[in-house]
Amino acid sequence: MRCTPFLRNLPPFSTTKPSAKLLERVRRPGYLAKLVRPEELAPLFKNDDYIGFSGFTGVGYPKTVPSAIADHIESNNLQADPSTKKKFNLFVGASVGPEVEDRWARMDMIARRYPHQVGKDIAKGINAGRIEFADKHLSMFPQDLTYGYYSLKKNHGDPTKPLDWAIVEATAITEDGWIVPGASVGASPEILQSAENIIIEINTRIPNLEGLHDINQSFGPPHRQPYLVTHPQDRIGTTAIPIDPDRVMAIVESNAPDNTGENAPETEESRAIARHLIEFLGAEVDAGRLPHSLLPLQSGIGNVANSIIGGLADGPFEQVQVWTEVLQDTFLRFFDSGKLSFATATSIRFSPGGFDHFYAHWAEYKDRLLLRSQQVANSPELIRRLGVIAMNTPLEVDIYAHANSTNALGSRMLNGLGGSADFLRNAKLSIMHTPSARPSKTDPTGITCIVPFASHIDQTEHDLDVVVTEQGLADLRGLSPRERAPVIIKNCAHPDYRDMLMDYYERSLVECLKRGAGHEPHMLRNAFKMHTNFMEKGTMKIDKWD
Amino acid sequence: MRCTPFLRNLPPFSTTKPSAKLLERVRRPGYLAKLVRPEELAPLFKNDDYIGFSGFTGVGYPKTVPSAIADHIESNNLQADPSTKKKFNLFVGASVGPEVEDRWARMDMIARRYPHQVGKDIAKGINAGRIEFADKHLSMFPQDLTYGYYSLKKNHGDPTKPLDWAIVEATAITEDGWIVPGASVGASPEILQSAENIIIEINTRIPNLEGLHDINQSFGPPHRQPYLVTHPQDRIGTTAIPIDPDRVMAIVESNAPDNTGENAPETEESRAIARHLIEFLGAEVDAGRLPHSLLPLQSGIGNVANSIIGGLADGPFEQVQVWTEVLQDTFLRFFDSGKLSFATATSIRFSPGGFDHFYAHWAEYKDRLLLRSQQVANSPELIRRLGVIAMNTPLEVDIYAHANSTNALGSRMLNGLGGSADFLRNAKLSIMHTPSARPSKTDPTGITCIVPFASHIDQTEHDLDVVVTEQGLADLRGLSPRERAPVIIKNCAHPDYRDMLMDYYERSLVECLKRGAGHEPHMLRNAFKMHTNFMEKGTMKIDKWD
Repeated sequence: MRCTPFLRNLPPFSTTKPSAKLLERVRRPGYLAKLVRPEELAPLFKNDDYIGFSGFTGVGYPKTVPSAIADHIESNNLQADPSTKKKFNLFVGASVGPEVEDRWARMDMIARRYPHQVGKDIAKGINAGRIEFADKHLSMFPQDLTYGYYSLKKNHGDPTKPLDWAIVEATAITEDGWIVPGASVGASPEILQSAENIIIEINTRIPNLEGLHDINQSFGPPHRQPYLVTHPQDRIGTTAIPIDPDRVMAIVESNAPDNTGENAPETEESRAIARHLIEFLGAEVDAGRLPHSLLPLQSGIGNVANSIIGGLADGPFEQVQVWTEVLQDTFLRFFDSGKLSFATATSIRFSPGGFDHFYAHWAEYKDRLLLRSQQVANSPELIRRLGVIAMNTPLEVDIYAHANSTNALGSRMLNGLGGSADFLRNAKLSIMHTPSARPSKTDPTGITCIVPFASHIDQTEHDLDVVVTEQGLADLRGLSPRERAPVIIKNCAHPDYRDMLMDYYERSLVECLKRGAGHEPHMLRNAFKMHTNFMEKGTMKIDKWD
Repeated sequence: MRCTPFLRNLPPFSTTKPSAKLLERVRRPGYLAKLVRPEELAPLFKNDDYIGFSGFTGVGYPKTVPSAIADHIESNNLQADPSTKKKFNLFVGASVGPEVEDRWARMDMIARRYPHQVGKDIAKGINAGRIEFADKHLSMFPQDLTYGYYSLKKNHGDPTKPLDWAIVEATAITEDGWIVPGASVGASPEILQSAENIIIEINTRIPNLEGLHDINQSFGPPHRQPYLVTHPQDRIGTTAIPIDPDRVMAIVESNAPDNTGENAPETEESRAIARHLIEFLGAEVDAGRLPHSLLPLQSGIGNVANSIIGGLADGPFEQVQVWTEVLQDTFLRFFDSGKLSFATATSIRFSPGGFDHFYAHWAEYKDRLLLRSQQVANSPELIRRLGVIAMNTPLEVDIYAHANSTNALGSRMLNGLGGSADFLRNAKLSIMHTPSARPSKTDPTGITCIVPFASHIDQTEHDLDVVVTEQGLADLRGLSPRERAPVIIKNCAHPDYRDMLMDYYERSLVECLKRGAGHEPHMLRNAFKMHTNFMEKGTMKIDKWD
């Protein structure tokens, strides 16, 4: 049975002539007849449409059509009038470039956004109540999308296709019309599978990345199959995303780079955290609990991750492997050190200079690197099987090792959960690293990252093995909550808060034992006192507990 | 290389003569020379020993040796003097019978206990600070044990064997000396693998259950393999647990039944919850999001589970399959209805009458049932692949769908996390069911199970799809936190609390939007006010928020 795109009966577009570069990339001649200018597509997007983009951590996203839609809306002043206003439901594996996502948010073009975002304006829209947002484990988002869980209220179009549109970036098209992605895979396979109409942006500025990706078929239960991966380098799929060519409504040529910035610079603090961590990993090797090549590493984005991976490039471990969500510049250095033998991720988010280096040395890297879909990269099945060592940064961790990855003071969304819980729940070693304190407006250590009770909980006490700050490392394996609290406070808390936190724990212990409830001692009346103190006085340093 | 049990150089036991029944069960003649009376073993257990038991949800645990150890300690009054006192580190897949675990707790014989327990006295010991306890995802406990995470501080015995002892129940011994378990598998394979010395209790009262179990080899990373299960009936292992016969120090004969009680009776409330749920599943089938035979079901223990499974036995779905942790009596009715085609679990916890029925009709059930290790039964890999429908009871759920499964008022441990989070994180449909309110001493609805902020969080907002009480059902799929709160409050909260909760939400929304932090609105100063009100006044009904 053929799919009938719901816009098929529109007047034909005035197609445009392909460039020489484009002709090289598109090996399916039929697609060339669908080549249009993005401005022609822009008016087709209706209010309340469900739109999926390719893209993950700000790379591999469509760059021209989303901008053309915004241009169209802006130049026609559509948002000024409720009768012409357009707000879309936007689904992307993770974040896309700010020139797309932040601009759409500023123009109030986003009604709903799942499951992760990065950008000042989109966060502002979410926290102002203008954008409905829910974050979700990145391994689960694609399956929930294909299950139809995000389109229960969609009241137009084909009910078996949760999305009206998929707009995806490609660096080449195969003879079968399949899509060779750019610098990320993310949720593109499932977004393409879920969309009535497909628009492909073929990016001729980025090299043809054919061979970098491993795309497996995504089935739903009861027909789902094992992922037959036992080593990071195992391939289980094809090099391009299979699609039904009949659902391709249009292709456009794009020449815009991934709009990334520089990586966060290392600091004295991030280097101290990395030192504690590398020392701990060395001790695990010595104790026989880890092989000398370690186990596949997952590491996030940010300066601590930079310091850790940089430290490993200079460190004692050889033949290291990486199984992670996203690679940043320091991984190039890790590769170049000869110590990283293979890496797999769902996106490569390099700085502009990092991309230049990577593309220039593509031949050297391409056999040591695979990009997979986020459903596979973040899969509990594979993270657990491989025994990944997971390392992520929270906003705050509490004295019993529950962690907040998402909402400042319990309510203000930053970026979302991402894959943190996919990895931390399933890793062999689950590690969270954070500075012990951060500055507030009036106090250089006004915010403690070790708190009595996390003001939002994304990772539970059952999911963390190790907490580390620049102060030191707390190894929580096998400890009861009553044993964990003193270790976390003494080893990890900033000296400005250590006594205050210990006082909270000890008073809680006395009160709770008195009433026969001392497993995980708390004074609930004071659990968020440090947080409310911050809201009132600009520092988490309280005068006294009662 | 052969293992050398560290007690091998003890004087030989006076062995005893095997009964005819025992001779039938033990097909490895060499073991019969190791047959002893349990009293002889009791003095061998030293203070601070690390001991693993078979057992899960109070079935399949060793019944005579643990009692003999307690008898020995009691009759010699060892606990009265610090120099003779014995406290053990006890590891069991989940709970064991009260005559073992509760008695050990009452006699202060337990220093440390992982990862789940059931019993008044053991809970009392934990909450009084006498027993160090940490609950853990049941799928992860066995691997953390084999990783050595629970024995980092163990300073005696073989460092590569985390346990000094494994004491396990068997219903038969194969020619190879392998162990055919009783009514549960749980963590027995890994406990046996981890122990220097093995003691086997051969239970001749329970039938030989050979063929009921599917035991797969458990490897650690980087050598772990996929679980090649795509349907609940798929076998991936052997019918007995492989062990090194040289590590078997002794066998004993046992004749004690699994000390289970009756199942919790259904109530009007539990039936109402079941009705809402079965109606919801029917609507999912109608919408094409579930097949008519549903997807494999996971259901917990308790009266709501009873009502649900009972409702399904009378319900519209055919050829249903079950992938769960534990089966209780109503599953027998479900089997007998002809609607349940296959079930797999890690334990069968029937009532005494249920066991009589099951053993009497063993031939009819045995090809429709498999017991697997908890590492497999609760495996994220398989729960996700099979698309399990998971249903569990929390203590409380908050208005954004975080749930507390373990600690009353944030601090008092009940039983532990169990497998709830293994299933809820990975299921296709994650459902929590609870009465909307429970009685306190002075108020028939003094405890609301829908709260502003869960006082302990085991399941996050990212893990629940549906919340259901006798009041109604909240379908949370695809909703943002601001959309979730009103739906949960209106559909699920008890009428006595509905306005109070809605008032909390609306005030929080106004306050948080005002400061640009309205993603998940809270008034942190009041987040636990209902809980502290309960501690002070015996009811969660507060007078006003500020």
